Amino acid sequence: MAPIKIGLIGLSAEGSWASGSHLPALLKSPHYQITALQNRTEASAKKAVEKYDLPGQVACHSDVDSLVRDPNVDVVVVSVKTPEHYRLTKPALEAKKDVFVEWPLGANLKQAEELTALAKAQGVRNMIGLQGRQNPSVLKAKEMVAAGKLGDILGTTMFAYGVIMGPVTPVALEYELTFENGATLATIPTMHGTDALCFVLGEFKHLQATLANHQPKMPIVDPTSGKVLRTVDNDTADQVSITGTLLNGAVATIVYQGGQPPTEKGLYWEIRGTKGSLIIEGPNGLLEMFPTTLKFVEHGGQPEEIETEIAADWAYNVGKAWDAFASGGPGSVPTFEDALVRHRMIDAIHRSHERGTREAYL
Amino acid sequence: MAPIKIGLIGLSAEGSWASGSHLPALLKSPHYQITALQNRTEASAKKAVEKYDLPGQVACHSDVDSLVRDPNVDVVVVSVKTPEHYRLTKPALEAKKDVFVEWPLGANLKQAEELTALAKAQGVRNMIGLQGRQNPSVLKAKEMVAAGKLGDILGTTMFAYGVIMGPVTPVALEYELTFENGATLATIPTMHGTDALCFVLGEFKHLQATLANHQPKMPIVDPTSGKVLRTVDNDTADQVSITGTLLNGAVATIVYQGGQPPTEKGLYWEIRGTKGSLIIEGPNGLLEMFPTTLKFVEHGGQPEEIETEIAADWAYNVGKAWDAFASGGPGSVPTFEDALVRHRMIDAIHRSHERGTREAYL
Repeated sequence: MAPIKIGLIGLSAEGSWASGSHLPALLKSPHYQITALQNRTEASAKKAVEKYDLPGQVACHSDVDSLVRDPNVDVVVVSVKTPEHYRLTKPALEAKKDVFVEWPLGANLKQAEELTALAKAQGVRNMIGLQGRQNPSVLKAKEMVAAGKLGDILGTTMFAYGVIMGPVTPVALEYELTFENGATLATIPTMHGTDALCFVLGEFKHLQATLANHQPKMPIVDPTSGKVLRTVDNDTADQVSITGTLLNGAVATIVYQGGQPPTEKGLYWEIRGTKGSLIIEGPNGLLEMFPTTLKFVEHGGQPEEIETEIAADWAYNVGKAWDAFASGGPGSVPTFEDALVRHRMIDAIHRSHERGTREAYL
Repeated sequence: MAPIKIGLIGLSAEGSWASGSHLPALLKSPHYQITALQNRTEASAKKAVEKYDLPGQVACHSDVDSLVRDPNVDVVVVSVKTPEHYRLTKPALEAKKDVFVEWPLGANLKQAEELTALAKAQGVRNMIGLQGRQNPSVLKAKEMVAAGKLGDILGTTMFAYGVIMGPVTPVALEYELTFENGATLATIPTMHGTDALCFVLGEFKHLQATLANHQPKMPIVDPTSGKVLRTVDNDTADQVSITGTLLNGAVATIVYQGGQPPTEKGLYWEIRGTKGSLIIEGPNGLLEMFPTTLKFVEHGGQPEEIETEIAADWAYNVGKAWDAFASGGPGSVPTFEDALVRHRMIDAIHRSHERGTREAYL
């Protein structure tokens, strides 16, 4: 079968999420070929082609309309910052291209609803970057829960650090400090962890949430020198705490704090059942990016490490998602429909926080 | 100074909380003398005197009215199961005796309010068994927080196992399965941990709570043989999750699960500040009874164990509370007023759970 032709938006010669994850995953896969790039300028796209020594002919586009009209592109990949997702994804859908969009799908629920409806109307395949679902510990946990190894699920607690929203913010992430850009501790790190939790255990019947913003003024730093460049307004949370009841009756609690964890255990996720417990640990709450370990403890027994593959680099989970996309079939990869559930959850979290209410989102 | 004369209710020759905690603490202290016991029968009280070889003359009473009229008793200690607290404490207060009552003060808020008002009207000194406040890690954490070692407090998370409300219940604790007895996972283990948290960090401005009862039918077992004697109705929670905002602005999350922890870390409590974090760990959530460790992590540094005394037996924290009571002065020991705050919190937790609302209790 001829490889699927990828038009990639967001591959920078300076390095980026796309260069550390999509690029190695796509280059390694026999199923894909990068045939086009779109950057802000054609020169910048050409620079990326050279820098990464991309094989074959790669078209360099300077605007999205040109990329989506390229007949040599099957799938448009939107791997840029959240506030640009809607603007770049919509033309791809209108051009009936299949699409991959990084999580979150949009900067807000309205954008996510519109893109999901459009993707459905156009009948295109789509994938959302919730690749925590490909994390080997998460997949194994899901399998063990489904097989009844834990018995009935009683409760689950996830305690994690979100890395972003620490005491300073690097200049490239300054846009995350504006709530309406939709790229916050609550929408990105917390939702990657929460998506994995719901993937393994099912959705919340209802939830309550408490958020806090301790740094309404945030220092912006040069990431190389660490020098503070300026201090800007921040209207996003650096603490997120969610508790609620899952559809399966278990009480679920999720805590994401901003910044780097104080110890090497920046992710602690326990799932407790009537027969035993699972413990997933990692260096921080970004289980979609960083490797995790999995332990099983039968009641009264000793913790036993469950061997799984290790997602040692950022390309691992992303690559598995691309593999699943290539093998086709609905349900094999998270879609815009899955993203929409998560966007509705984000709105429920903020409603609960603002109103002090218990909220549902399904 | 002549020793303070103690009339102890609840010392059983078969062993009990009182024999493992109050008895050794009081016997060791130069400030106290046990002068009277009250048990269900005089014979049972005499048996306890013999069993523990109590020094001096110890009067043996078979009813509370007789004990509280005993002129040789300064302080009445109520160390029995929760549903009996009100019935036994009220006559002591009416007789203008100083009192110690195990936590919880009453089986419900109404009882706690009545006893607190009565103690105040009678002008007697009183102490409540919230001796987690004497836990050396807790005291040290409070001192470090107050001294600003952590900077501003951003968030705190306590994740613990409550030991009770596991898959079976020993026959002596069967009364804990009836909500109206007021001796549940939510009111006892969770409140000991929560009281310590609020002692260190201050009270909640408001909170939200989710509870669950996965075992409406509970097997009652003989603790020696492990044999199931019968299965009874249970209307109490085996999962408690609380999240909210403290008066200092930090987001606090507390999770107590029923039963024994799957690993040796049955208590994990982290306090995060702008300068550093504290980590308190223990074998389970009963930090008022079991020893804990304390670590400090300055931001960017390595966890450093903070040396404190070790509350190696159940008499340690209780003894420290008795020491504080003997040295006098208001504020040195938790009182009924402190208990009342906690009882109001319990009601707020249940209101929030039932109504899905954010609740305050101060």
